[in-house]
Amino acid sequence: MEMPDKPAQVVGTLLTIGDEILLGDIPNGNAHHIARELRAKGFRLQRIVTVGDTENEIVELLSQCLDKSHFIVATGGLGPTDDDRTNSAVSKAFSRPLITNQDYEDWLKKHLSAMGKDVSAELERMAALPKGAVKLGLDMAGFFLLHRNVPCYFLPGVPGEMKYLLGNIVIPDLESRFPERTSFLKHIVRVQGLLEAEVNRRLRDLDHVALGVDIGYLPQGRENWITIFASAPNEEECRSLLRKAEAKITELIGERNISGHNEDCLEQVIGRQLRARGWKLTTAESCTGGLLSRKITSVAGASDYLDRGFVTYSNQAKTELLGVSGELLQAHGAVSEQVALAMAEGALKAARADIAVGITGIAGPEGGSPEKPVGTVYIACVTRDGRTVERFSFGGAREQVQESAAHAALVIMWKMLTGESLPRCD
Amino acid sequence: MEMPDKPAQVVGTLLTIGDEILLGDIPNGNAHHIARELRAKGFRLQRIVTVGDTENEIVELLSQCLDKSHFIVATGGLGPTDDDRTNSAVSKAFSRPLITNQDYEDWLKKHLSAMGKDVSAELERMAALPKGAVKLGLDMAGFFLLHRNVPCYFLPGVPGEMKYLLGNIVIPDLESRFPERTSFLKHIVRVQGLLEAEVNRRLRDLDHVALGVDIGYLPQGRENWITIFASAPNEEECRSLLRKAEAKITELIGERNISGHNEDCLEQVIGRQLRARGWKLTTAESCTGGLLSRKITSVAGASDYLDRGFVTYSNQAKTELLGVSGELLQAHGAVSEQVALAMAEGALKAARADIAVGITGIAGPEGGSPEKPVGTVYIACVTRDGRTVERFSFGGAREQVQESAAHAALVIMWKMLTGESLPRCD
Repeated sequence: MEMPDKPAQVVGTLLTIGDEILLGDIPNGNAHHIARELRAKGFRLQRIVTVGDTENEIVELLSQCLDKSHFIVATGGLGPTDDDRTNSAVSKAFSRPLITNQDYEDWLKKHLSAMGKDVSAELERMAALPKGAVKLGLDMAGFFLLHRNVPCYFLPGVPGEMKYLLGNIVIPDLESRFPERTSFLKHIVRVQGLLEAEVNRRLRDLDHVALGVDIGYLPQGRENWITIFASAPNEEECRSLLRKAEAKITELIGERNISGHNEDCLEQVIGRQLRARGWKLTTAESCTGGLLSRKITSVAGASDYLDRGFVTYSNQAKTELLGVSGELLQAHGAVSEQVALAMAEGALKAARADIAVGITGIAGPEGGSPEKPVGTVYIACVTRDGRTVERFSFGGAREQVQESAAHAALVIMWKMLTGESLPRCD
Repeated sequence: MEMPDKPAQVVGTLLTIGDEILLGDIPNGNAHHIARELRAKGFRLQRIVTVGDTENEIVELLSQCLDKSHFIVATGGLGPTDDDRTNSAVSKAFSRPLITNQDYEDWLKKHLSAMGKDVSAELERMAALPKGAVKLGLDMAGFFLLHRNVPCYFLPGVPGEMKYLLGNIVIPDLESRFPERTSFLKHIVRVQGLLEAEVNRRLRDLDHVALGVDIGYLPQGRENWITIFASAPNEEECRSLLRKAEAKITELIGERNISGHNEDCLEQVIGRQLRARGWKLTTAESCTGGLLSRKITSVAGASDYLDRGFVTYSNQAKTELLGVSGELLQAHGAVSEQVALAMAEGALKAARADIAVGITGIAGPEGGSPEKPVGTVYIACVTRDGRTVERFSFGGAREQVQESAAHAALVIMWKMLTGESLPRCD
């Protein structure tokens, strides 16, 4: 790696220590969080390495990283058990003897003695930090070392503690050490109702080099995200690059296919639309079992527009709660266009709402037929003066079908609320 | 690393290639899946490394891994864009010239020409594989190489394709190459209603060395998982070790605090209980907005016992759908023990169910008061001849409060259905 005096990009290495990731017990959520937070402030990782609680491995990696990184962040291995080898590994890798940090040992004694267990040996090891280490935080593990001019942050593996130290100490400290770094920003464009191949086709002639940005595509479930990356000497220039690229992308993709940007999810866009109109929404769900109303109510303030939702799994429930007639159910089957519409209309009436969605389908794994295989879902959306219903054939296992159906329902609602018609895709 | 002739444990390196993980755009789901699947078959990873689409980095890592691993799995970097550098990096790292794989090039031409784009240069690069490479799969990227007797699998980064090749080719191939490997199994004990510290306290005197196993603790949301790891020359001995350790853990933790094992989640345990009794369940949810019914219906066959659920966000909905009286709401407030009970009882009656749950609370971020701060949730569970209600104070942001409340409701239902009382924790 080239290491210019004033780095064009400040790049670091992340070392996550712990057997549970290697063994597949948990995903590496810490790494995702750290990468995202660093990136948001213009720092990037060039390598993420996960190793187990093996001292030699940690020693070897620390030595390797040092020559290649402007900074090092490590998580894990700071606890009291025999498995926790980070202090000792840092001591070896950086040839710094372990020295007891008295304040930390005092705090540990006070804190851990409450466990009613003789932990003096463990405490001694936890509080023995490599020479030159600066303790991070008061009531948790973690320390900082400047070694051969590379800032190295050793954080606990406990997500809450890691997040606290990262946000409050590590990132501010990095910002003050590397004030000259290149700005690096991204912008996400959320595309609805287009298959990935179609998104690619529409952006085929986008000249990202001329625009001075990088473009990434990421299918996120049934949404497509177009991510624009810009890097420039300062944030303002970054933003200007992003704006220009976003305008071009909007032109190529079509404004009516873009539901929002960055963190602005469909649930929030729909919520704002409803609130602006003073409308009430209601849901009538069969195969999704409450997932749609759960999505709607994950947004704070959803009580402004959702006052009730119906989970009607059985035919009887559809009849009693939504007024879907037995004849209709008999004639077309519970999984049908007609019943999806009747569910939405019944819910609209029962809840005295302004817009209602009805979902009925076969989530599987049982219940499919040749005409209506597993994954067949009908979704209706009705308002006081409009109605639409669509048939979908979703792939995947039960929970994926449910997830896809709930998302498709959000897209249909969004289409109704924004008064635009959209090409559709299964 | 020691490399005995007959390895006690077969350990490998996983290399995930792609900028999107380093940039924090997505979590490394591929790594989690691969680690878990390998582990289930007695293989383990000693290192997971993520690097960007940088040829030199990939070359360096491949060379480093080779001496330390019984096998190498890599994902990503096999696509058609300039960013995809894996083929070329392998060629350099292993000194094997790139040779066109004619079958693959033919398939690519047929497949990608449909995109209506001149992609001949890209195709040529995708189909140029390092000498000695064996193509994996017919209709996707991926190849195998045996280099210096280390099996190396290069898989696409697309999760569906990676999973297909891993399960159908990589793992069976590893099994045939390392038939003598040590068996390595785990067993998860799911503990409900105990705080992590209490789980630790109860297991303080567990002598895992004498039992010949390793023990891990993992809080999973509001459940605690105790994971027992056993390794032995064969699967049978592993299972025997697991059984003995499980018996001891059950004794120390108390049978009534253990809801299930391994993949057996509370939703499934509850479903089996309900089916065995021929009981119907219904839900009345306010602050969880359908999350509880969504959890219940994520289990296949839930229609056997859930025929309907009520999402009653507003007071009016509680009154109209569940018969909660205006006086009661006025006297105690919608978030109260009394209303939680009235919701459950109203739902039981309206759905003619045998067991019903009522949830009302303040998910936040708005709506808290000094007496009932954000996170206050009342959960009631009623049957034809029993009733219980509990007050909880959950921490975290809105979605965490909702998640905790839905899980606590499952625990209460499980307690009612198994007829045991449990110590509780917030």
